Amino acid sequence: MTVGRLKFLIMLALVAAAATATPALTKAVDGPRGTGDLGIIVERAAGRVQIVETTGRTLLARVEGLGDLSHASAVFSRDGRYAFVFGRDGGLSKVDLLTGTLTARVIQAGNSIGGAISQDGALVAVSNYVPGGVKVFSTRTLEPIADIPASYGPDGKLSKVVGLVDAPGQSFVFTLYDAGEIWIADMKDPKTPKIRKFKNVGKLPYDALVTGDGRYYVAGLFGEDGLAMLDLWRPEDGVKRILAGYGRGEKPLPVYKMPHLEGWARAGELLFLPAVGRHEVLVVDPRTWTEVGRIAVHGQPVFAVARPDGRQVWVNFAHPLNDIVQVIDVPTLKVIHEFKPGKAVLHLEFTPRGEQVWISVRDADRVDVYDTRTFAPLVSLDVEKPSGIFLAARAHRIGL
Amino acid sequence: MTVGRLKFLIMLALVAAAATATPALTKAVDGPRGTGDLGIIVERAAGRVQIVETTGRTLLARVEGLGDLSHASAVFSRDGRYAFVFGRDGGLSKVDLLTGTLTARVIQAGNSIGGAISQDGALVAVSNYVPGGVKVFSTRTLEPIADIPASYGPDGKLSKVVGLVDAPGQSFVFTLYDAGEIWIADMKDPKTPKIRKFKNVGKLPYDALVTGDGRYYVAGLFGEDGLAMLDLWRPEDGVKRILAGYGRGEKPLPVYKMPHLEGWARAGELLFLPAVGRHEVLVVDPRTWTEVGRIAVHGQPVFAVARPDGRQVWVNFAHPLNDIVQVIDVPTLKVIHEFKPGKAVLHLEFTPRGEQVWISVRDADRVDVYDTRTFAPLVSLDVEKPSGIFLAARAHRIGL
Repeated sequence: MTVGRLKFLIMLALVAAAATATPALTKAVDGPRGTGDLGIIVERAAGRVQIVETTGRTLLARVEGLGDLSHASAVFSRDGRYAFVFGRDGGLSKVDLLTGTLTARVIQAGNSIGGAISQDGALVAVSNYVPGGVKVFSTRTLEPIADIPASYGPDGKLSKVVGLVDAPGQSFVFTLYDAGEIWIADMKDPKTPKIRKFKNVGKLPYDALVTGDGRYYVAGLFGEDGLAMLDLWRPEDGVKRILAGYGRGEKPLPVYKMPHLEGWARAGELLFLPAVGRHEVLVVDPRTWTEVGRIAVHGQPVFAVARPDGRQVWVNFAHPLNDIVQVIDVPTLKVIHEFKPGKAVLHLEFTPRGEQVWISVRDADRVDVYDTRTFAPLVSLDVEKPSGIFLAARAHRIGL
Repeated sequence: MTVGRLKFLIMLALVAAAATATPALTKAVDGPRGTGDLGIIVERAAGRVQIVETTGRTLLARVEGLGDLSHASAVFSRDGRYAFVFGRDGGLSKVDLLTGTLTARVIQAGNSIGGAISQDGALVAVSNYVPGGVKVFSTRTLEPIADIPASYGPDGKLSKVVGLVDAPGQSFVFTLYDAGEIWIADMKDPKTPKIRKFKNVGKLPYDALVTGDGRYYVAGLFGEDGLAMLDLWRPEDGVKRILAGYGRGEKPLPVYKMPHLEGWARAGELLFLPAVGRHEVLVVDPRTWTEVGRIAVHGQPVFAVARPDGRQVWVNFAHPLNDIVQVIDVPTLKVIHEFKPGKAVLHLEFTPRGEQVWISVRDADRVDVYDTRTFAPLVSLDVEKPSGIFLAARAHRIGL
C-alpha cells in the first residue's frame, strides 16, 4: 500500500468519524455514490436544507446552520457534488451533498437575493440589496474574487441588484432595481470584470430570467407595464420593450405576489408566462415576442413550469388560492388536471427527464412526489416548512 | 463507532485494496467525488474505455475487457455513476465511473448497434441486428427483463433494428431496417411491453433520432429520398414523409459515410442536418419541417453538433476529408472558423454548458479539448485510437 493510499484511508476514517459525530447524517456518506439524482429542499424556518435523492425518493441528510433562508435559492457545482445556497441575510453556504456537511460559509453582504454559477464552474456570484451590487467568489474556497458595486447616477448611489444569471461566454447578467439598468459582466479575467451597461430599461425592474439557451435576458417591470428584453447575441441592438400588455395594467389589480420570472416555461414552440394579478397564464410566441393566447386558471399564478419534454405546464398560485396545482396540456392549451396538495404550495421541481415532479406543501410540512404521466402520488416526505426544491441536474443547464 | 460504520470502513479498505491491485486505476477512487463532470472515451481497437473528467480535463482510469467496440455508444444511469456501453458484438457492459471497474457484462446478442435507457432509469434496451429485435435489461443487475423480437411479414422473419431511443412516458422507439417499420414499446409494465407498429414508413430506414424534447422521431432512409417522421404527441396521425429532397438524389452521388442522424443540431429556432453525399449542411425550420437554406462546407458532413447554447454548429467530415473541423455561426449561417486537428476526426462532444468541446482524432491517438469561445486548444490527451466521447451529463437528457 502506497503512502497516498494510506493517506486516503486515514482521510476516509476522518470523514467517517465526523459522520458518527453528527447523528443527522444517515445515508449520505454510506460508500461511493453518483450525484446525478441528488438535490436539496430548503427548510426555511429552520435555516436548514434536506439532501434528497430521486431514485428511491428518500431523504438522505439534514444540513443545519444556513441562516435566514427566506426566498433562498441554490446553484450546483459542475461536478454535481456541491450546492451553493443563497440566503436572505447575505449568507453564501457551500453544502457537500455526498458527506452531508456544510463545507464553507461566508456572510458576504447584509441583504441578498439569489445568485449564479459561471459557465466554467469556477465562480459563484451573489446579487445583493445591501450593499447594492454583485460579489463574486471562488467555488472552491468561497474566497472573494471580484466586487461589482451597482453604482449609478451622478452621485454614484448603490442600487439593489436582482435577476442575476449566468450566460454563455463566461458572463453574468443582472439588473439594477433602483437604477433601471441591465449590466453584463464579462468574467474572462475574473479579478477585473468588464462591465457593459444598458440604461433606462424601464421603471423598477424587479426580477429577470435568461432563456434556456442563454440568448434572451428578460426583466419584469414593477413600475410600468411591459418587459425589458436584451438579445445577448446582439447586445449592440440594446434593450427593447416587449409584451406591452404584460403587467398590472392601467387600473392596477390587487397583486398578491409578483410572479417569478424563472417560472417561465418554454414548451414546444411556445412560452408560458404567469400573468400579473390576473387568473391567467399567457402564451407567447418566442420568435416574435408577441402574445398568442391566454389560458384561464384557478388563481394568480406564481410559477408556470414546463415538464422537461414540454408537453405539460404545471402551475401553482398565490395566497389565498395556493392549495391547488393545475396542469396545462400544451397541444390543446387546456387545463387537463387539478389537485389539492394542501395549503401553501410554494415550489415545483421536475426530475430532468420529467417522469417525476416534487412539490413543496409548506403548511402541511410535506414534500409530495407525483408521477407526471398518471398524476398518481408516489411518496410524501416529512419536511419542515419546505420552500424551494433544487435538483443537482441544474448543474448542467444554462441560466440555472 | 457502529457496526454499520465499521462495515463501511472495511468496504472502503477493500475498494482501496482492489485499486492497488489494478495499476490502471489511478485517480478514479481517491475519495468521494461528484459524477457530473465525468465521461468516457471509447478506445475502439483496444476494447477499452477511458474515464475522464472535464473540470481538470484529465484521464482518470482505464476499463478493459469491453469486447468489440466498433461503432460503440453509451448511455448513463440517472445518478450519473454508471455508463452502459453498447458494443458491436452484442456485448452490454456496465462501467462504474467512480471505481473505474467493469461492474457487469452480458453478451446479449450476436451483433448489435446502440441502445437507450428508460425515462425512469430502471431499464436499458439494446437494438440488435442478429437476432433482429430489442432486448431489455435491468440497469441494476443487467438481468433480462423483456425480449422484443422484430418479426415482420407473413413468415415472421426478424428484421435488424436501428435508431433505438427513449421517449417520455417510459417508452422506447425503434426502427426495423429490413421491414421498413417503426415501433413504439410502452414499458410501463416492463415484463410485458405494449407494442404499437407503424408499417410502410419507407425503404431501408438506416438510422433515426428523437428531438431533444422527445416529441419527433425521425428516420433516415437508405433506399429512397426523404425522411420518415412520427409525431409522438400524435401517433394517431401516423408516419409522414418530410424533406423529400433529403438523400442521395435521383442520380446517386458517391457517399463515403451515411451521416449520423444523432448529429442533428437544434440551434436557436432552426435545425441543422448533414446532407447525404453533398458538401452541405441543410438548414430546416422545425415548425414546418421544410428546408430553408444550405451551407457549403468542406466535405461530406458526418456530425453537425450544436453548442449547447445554439449559437454555433460544429461539423466533422467523412473520409478522405476527415482531418478538418468547421464551425458554423448560427446568426449569419456562415462558416466562421476552420482548423485541422489531424487525420480521422471521429466525434465531438460539448460539455453541458458549452464552454469546452472534446474532439477524437483517431489516427493521431489524441483527444483534443478546445475553448469554444476563443477556439484555443486547452489540452491534448493521449488516447489510443479514440472514437466516441460520451459525458455523464447525458443522463439528464431525453433521447441520449
